[in-house]
Amino acid sequence: MAVKIGLVGTGTVGGGCIDIIKAHKEEFLRHYGIDIELVAVSSLNPEQAAAHGVSKLFTPDFMNIINDPDIDIVIELIGGTTVAHTVVTEALKAGKNVVTANKALMATYGVEIMELAREQHKELAFEASVGGGIPIIGPLKHSLIANKITQIMGIVNGTTNYMLTRMDEAGLSYDEALAEAQANGFAEANPSADVDGFDAAAKIAILASIAFNTNVSMDQVYTEGIRDLSAIDMATAKELGYALKLLAIANLKEDGVEVRVHPTMLPLEHQLAQVKGVFNAIWCVGDFVGETMYFGEGAGAGAAASAVMGDVLEVARHVQQGILPMSGNTTKDELEIIPMDELSTKYYLHLVVHDQAGVLAKSAAIFANYGVSISAMMQKGKQHNGAVDLVYITHHASEKAIRQAVEDIVFTEGILANNTRPVVIRVQE
Amino acid sequence: MAVKIGLVGTGTVGGGCIDIIKAHKEEFLRHYGIDIELVAVSSLNPEQAAAHGVSKLFTPDFMNIINDPDIDIVIELIGGTTVAHTVVTEALKAGKNVVTANKALMATYGVEIMELAREQHKELAFEASVGGGIPIIGPLKHSLIANKITQIMGIVNGTTNYMLTRMDEAGLSYDEALAEAQANGFAEANPSADVDGFDAAAKIAILASIAFNTNVSMDQVYTEGIRDLSAIDMATAKELGYALKLLAIANLKEDGVEVRVHPTMLPLEHQLAQVKGVFNAIWCVGDFVGETMYFGEGAGAGAAASAVMGDVLEVARHVQQGILPMSGNTTKDELEIIPMDELSTKYYLHLVVHDQAGVLAKSAAIFANYGVSISAMMQKGKQHNGAVDLVYITHHASEKAIRQAVEDIVFTEGILANNTRPVVIRVQE
Repeated sequence: MAVKIGLVGTGTVGGGCIDIIKAHKEEFLRHYGIDIELVAVSSLNPEQAAAHGVSKLFTPDFMNIINDPDIDIVIELIGGTTVAHTVVTEALKAGKNVVTANKALMATYGVEIMELAREQHKELAFEASVGGGIPIIGPLKHSLIANKITQIMGIVNGTTNYMLTRMDEAGLSYDEALAEAQANGFAEANPSADVDGFDAAAKIAILASIAFNTNVSMDQVYTEGIRDLSAIDMATAKELGYALKLLAIANLKEDGVEVRVHPTMLPLEHQLAQVKGVFNAIWCVGDFVGETMYFGEGAGAGAAASAVMGDVLEVARHVQQGILPMSGNTTKDELEIIPMDELSTKYYLHLVVHDQAGVLAKSAAIFANYGVSISAMMQKGKQHNGAVDLVYITHHASEKAIRQAVEDIVFTEGILANNTRPVVIRVQE
Repeated sequence: MAVKIGLVGTGTVGGGCIDIIKAHKEEFLRHYGIDIELVAVSSLNPEQAAAHGVSKLFTPDFMNIINDPDIDIVIELIGGTTVAHTVVTEALKAGKNVVTANKALMATYGVEIMELAREQHKELAFEASVGGGIPIIGPLKHSLIANKITQIMGIVNGTTNYMLTRMDEAGLSYDEALAEAQANGFAEANPSADVDGFDAAAKIAILASIAFNTNVSMDQVYTEGIRDLSAIDMATAKELGYALKLLAIANLKEDGVEVRVHPTMLPLEHQLAQVKGVFNAIWCVGDFVGETMYFGEGAGAGAAASAVMGDVLEVARHVQQGILPMSGNTTKDELEIIPMDELSTKYYLHLVVHDQAGVLAKSAAIFANYGVSISAMMQKGKQHNGAVDLVYITHHASEKAIRQAVEDIVFTEGILANNTRPVVIRVQE
């Protein structure tokens, strides 16, 4: 007897799931012995269901899916943390297995929901919540578990990677790149979740939780977006041998977990530096496996639906064979989140300063005062309105020292020109 | 009660497995509830077991492991297709689950062994047989199964990738690159399995079998190595915007499976072109997921042991929970292998010809005669001993036409100089 599926949400990804079932249902049975049947579909848009030819399965109320005793697996694809929270928790309470692509939900209520699934002896799968179609939760939960994972780092937001690629390759400004991304459907009218780094923060919270077997929620992730990046920083990065990327980074350290999202200068020869346009990639280092990377489309109907349906088929295989959930909630270690102030890395600092004698001495004195040691300093571009662009690269310094130095520079008379703010970019070696 | 493991083979990878168990046994239990215990070790070298501190578990006869009723999982790491075949089949017949890293065995006797495992209701896992530590069999058997996979293509031999990287970046000749690889321990004294492409052929046979759900054995893979590549071809490739890589390629076509290993010119901006040194990467295209890539260390104790132990832990999880094998032999479709003659691609042809009037006309007439259309022709380097290097790039042509044209060129008087053979390299777009 077929494993029965109910789908909540019929947007881009939901539509992709319907398309996959139509295209490959017969192969799933022939190749893998997995027999699934989509029996109910719910959303706010009956016309989306109609467009995918499943009007007959449509119900306007998702509770009809949750209360249907024949349904084994509920797919939640409505997004957000309000109604989706109800769908997922009510489905688990009603004894359904749940597959979701909801990064905000998992990065906010992950532990609560994983615990509920564990108590209910039901499966909760969320491969599509990170990296679109790229298999990464699966490898972390299976192939790689013989390792202690020490670093997970990725380009997990396609919108900003597209924008940064265009700023780099076509010399666009931030505003031009955003307008182009919006025109191409890669960015929302309100782009904040992407450009301010919140989308990436949710994803790295999920990845860090699974990779390090601990609980990281998105509000614990230090998050900085790409709004302040300019053409001059892109060009200087390249000159210095770096790509400028919005990276989501999680490191397992002796004293806890470091987890952050910010623009990062990455050596051009690093595999992640080669990832361009809307593609995503996740870099993962384990103590035995060494360096690995997973690359693919981070968004789009087909890619995300591939990940959702991969989860659905795996759960359906278990339902058919009467297998209870195998891994449960693996995020039980209670590791500390290391405060951002304690970060130690190299920094790129871009100051627009008065083109006058004494400015260099003043800034140098401030760096020295906070123990920040400079490895390179250069003047970029031409003098403009009595101001010049100065770029510093530091040796390893603490985030706290850099912040104090930057504040001192801002508040010291006669250094910064034109009411500018210093640009601070962390450098990953 | 712990799941009991017997290890046959204590070389590099076997040693890595012992190290992983020692390092992380306690975490496997705490994080995943998986309780494993290494109870027996066998090989021809008791001193290797001693070096890893497991002398007490050593037995010189692997049949003691196979006949031990307490052992649940046998790890086969002796390699080759003779004794290893006995170890694997006898272990399955004795009711053990088997984990192996043996590419030659799986690429030669894969179907027989998978069928035996199915009949015995036991698991057979072989992630480490392809791509070292890179999770690829796992993703193909789980996360990606919602897709029809249409292409799988990879750099799956680290030795040759190291050599080609050194030829490219340091301008080494083939012989110099081989000597250096041997000095660094990346190539065997007899390098044939690597440089002639057989290692890569075994791996692509396994990947094609799993990705396309059919049976491909390594003797069905068209295989060409890198012995004929020269500095002039490396340099010309780069000038034309290509990297020269030994690629293993499998394509699913309307009329069957195309599967081959040969030096390939790949656009420099392709993700695979960026993979350097001993690293491996596998490119996989699915109808919904689109383009994905998996990158990591293709060899080495830690990486391969990570893959072996990932399999061991997964099987142990099933043993603990009394779960029968879930996927079985999925290679049951009987797809045709498309004859190499029917390949259609672009070609790079490098001829050393007499520097005389009429030579161009003669070769052009031969290409025209076989319907091979030329997209570019250039003279490389200087005239030497009355000869010059000519490079042609063709439009799409059939392998058969190219071979016929090349044979005609070889046997036509007055074209090729100095008894040279044309160099033919396929171009991947």
